[in-house]
Amino acid sequence: MGTAQQSVPFLKGHGTENDFVIIPDFDGRLALDAAAVARLCDRRAGIGGDGLLRVVRSAAHPEAVALADQAEWFMDYRNADGSVAEMCGNGLRVFARYLRHAGLAKGRELAVATRAGLRRARFAEDADAGPITVAMGRARLPGGAAASVTVRVGELSWPAHQVDMGNPHAVAFVDDLAQAGPLLTAPEVRPTTAYPHGTNVEFVVDRGARHVALRVHERGSGETRSCGTGACAVMVAAARRDGHDPAADGRPVSYTVDVPGGRLEITEAVDGTVTMTGPALIVAEGVLVPELLAAAG
Amino acid sequence: MGTAQQSVPFLKGHGTENDFVIIPDFDGRLALDAAAVARLCDRRAGIGGDGLLRVVRSAAHPEAVALADQAEWFMDYRNADGSVAEMCGNGLRVFARYLRHAGLAKGRELAVATRAGLRRARFAEDADAGPITVAMGRARLPGGAAASVTVRVGELSWPAHQVDMGNPHAVAFVDDLAQAGPLLTAPEVRPTTAYPHGTNVEFVVDRGARHVALRVHERGSGETRSCGTGACAVMVAAARRDGHDPAADGRPVSYTVDVPGGRLEITEAVDGTVTMTGPALIVAEGVLVPELLAAAG
Repeated sequence: MGTAQQSVPFLKGHGTENDFVIIPDFDGRLALDAAAVARLCDRRAGIGGDGLLRVVRSAAHPEAVALADQAEWFMDYRNADGSVAEMCGNGLRVFARYLRHAGLAKGRELAVATRAGLRRARFAEDADAGPITVAMGRARLPGGAAASVTVRVGELSWPAHQVDMGNPHAVAFVDDLAQAGPLLTAPEVRPTTAYPHGTNVEFVVDRGARHVALRVHERGSGETRSCGTGACAVMVAAARRDGHDPAADGRPVSYTVDVPGGRLEITEAVDGTVTMTGPALIVAEGVLVPELLAAAG
Repeated sequence: MGTAQQSVPFLKGHGTENDFVIIPDFDGRLALDAAAVARLCDRRAGIGGDGLLRVVRSAAHPEAVALADQAEWFMDYRNADGSVAEMCGNGLRVFARYLRHAGLAKGRELAVATRAGLRRARFAEDADAGPITVAMGRARLPGGAAASVTVRVGELSWPAHQVDMGNPHAVAFVDDLAQAGPLLTAPEVRPTTAYPHGTNVEFVVDRGARHVALRVHERGSGETRSCGTGACAVMVAAARRDGHDPAADGRPVSYTVDVPGGRLEITEAVDGTVTMTGPALIVAEGVLVPELLAAAG
């Protein structure tokens, strides 16, 4: 592992099996370019993760310094291919759990700086192990509450709801989650003009009153074990289908949303804000070889 | 991570991107059942690996105690699903690198107890980072040196060579590694009587004199980045095709075999013994949460 001063600390964690390499780099000193992130997230040659969460003081990062008064920590989130991303709901829970685990978050409420702005996390009474609630913004329904697009896989097709959670979703209610098959390629969504940059696609079945289960095909990633914005999009589409609209009703509504990697509780408030509550676990911590950061010459 | 005495040490390493969770458990005290191994090897909820290498003193393990005079350490190898396996060539290199890294292997030669018996590893002059050579046993060619079976993928088919390295292989020389497509399902091999328990399938192209490249579909695992026995089977099939037979020629022959995850040098000796030389890296080390070993109640 080289000498002690060369080794780079890391942790691995996940939220509903959406997993992350966590790199504490409080003063923003690591040169963490796209190639280094891709090496770290490589599941066989590196540590492995759906993405990477670098933990940097807001005051030490040019993209977060303006938020430093409101949030001590900046979640520098990267996709597994090394590209920069704005926000990740499952990642935010894991980021909050890390801060708690490291003794860097006191109390039940936490504000985190992200590229999408300030985001809030709230710990349960058991802050060390209980679920964590994160604010996910508001949903927009560009096609209205009714199904306005069509999702097709092979010979099968379903009407689907357009939901925007900052990123695009097509939500199809189906009879059986197995119907869509192995989802080795992206489902077709028509009309293509509805999603000029492609879309995430969710297949949803009912499990009970205000309780649904989904599969998700993520744009650019394929089928995954969990997608935070996808679960929120599904919750809002199911609520509208079931006649719930908190802004009109004057009361919030909550759904249980099962994803392949676990269970989320999602609430839409009267002001339209969607919050997601779910597990976040740190499973390992240690040091990694510096060659993963800077490829050996 | 719980208190210090609860945390379980681990490392992660790979050889040509065949990757392993390494669990040092010198006195064999951990209850590492199939479910625990599967949790540790889970790429999203655990650490992630193609398999697990538990490091136990031969004297402390009932399956290895008879070899304790010849080999201090037993490689307790498990598949990612938790099932027990006899041997793994890429794993043996990583196991040897771990012993060196931990200061438990002195000198250039090392004997390791495995479920397949005693296996030998040899370090390069740079024992800390250089390639490692492991003995892989002898190849058998049940169908002779000629192609005796047929491999089919979709509309395409190729003649293939039957090679047994302790496990079965069908080696097909092809014009282009891309020809077989994405290999999402196992290639068909005929006659099925040639492989009553199924087979690993290798597709091979020439890269130069005694230099080939392969893709491999592993029985039960799908396409992988590397397969040690597959690379050895390919080397022997290529040698025979090229008119080399060390036992008849009275001299060894060596091939460079490129696998998707790296490069191996493989030699067949006059006595038929096949040795494989390749990289082995430890990429991270630390502690993991005890819940991965014993599922939370």
